[in-house]
Amino acid sequence: MEFKLDGLKYRNVDGTGGLVLAIAQDHKTGEVLMAAYTNREAIEKSFETGRVHYYSTSRKKLWLKGETSGHFQKIVEAYVDCDQDAVLYKVEQTGAACHEGYRTCFYRKIKDGKLVTTGKKP
Amino acid sequence: MEFKLDGLKYRNVDGTGGLVLAIAQDHKTGEVLMAAYTNREAIEKSFETGRVHYYSTSRKKLWLKGETSGHFQKIVEAYVDCDQDAVLYKVEQTGAACHEGYRTCFYRKIKDGKLVTTGKKP
Repeated sequence: MEFKLDGLKYRNVDGTGGLVLAIAQDHKTGEVLMAAYTNREAIEKSFETGRVHYYSTSRKKLWLKGETSGHFQKIVEAYVDCDQDAVLYKVEQTGAACHEGYRTCFYRKIKDGKLVTTGKKP
Repeated sequence: MEFKLDGLKYRNVDGTGGLVLAIAQDHKTGEVLMAAYTNREAIEKSFETGRVHYYSTSRKKLWLKGETSGHFQKIVEAYVDCDQDAVLYKVEQTGAACHEGYRTCFYRKIKDGKLVTTGKKP
């Protein structure tokens, strides 16, 4: 079956339309690195270049992950979910996925009502 | 640091406000099982019961995963991301996460412009 960008279910998030959820996962360790939004153009560019592009809802622009930090996400595999509103990229992450310097954006565990930092900085 | 539900960044998705992204991941295999939305009440119920609750944007209601299918997600660990608009639940999944019968909702790989079914049905 053909993968059609028109077949995706685009959502309107905080007033920005045409968005699909994107999750990046380390292809070796399985660690979930980040979750953000992407759009049609960003998905196209991701497949063209082999590097994950997102759409920033705050900056209202397409965004190549790693463009300024050098922390690129090289796509190893890509998946789409059942209702076609989310893509999962299994990636080779250069450096840290999180702008806070942690390997993953999910660097804090919720434990007994507290936030405990469990993430590592590479 | 205390985990505060008020500290989360709630988004408006397709006209439904107060939403946070929720990702469920198999705590043993690392497989990403599904991505959906949740809200303040659903997060509270998840921690109270130890089972993941979501908020359905189509049905406009809180939803205990497994309520009708029996395919519950028992929370083993929970994480929050840097910008606090997403939670990651590491879970023990009963049966299939996907309503299509597959273990994961991400059961189709995007490969050379095609969708290839790679998921397994338990």
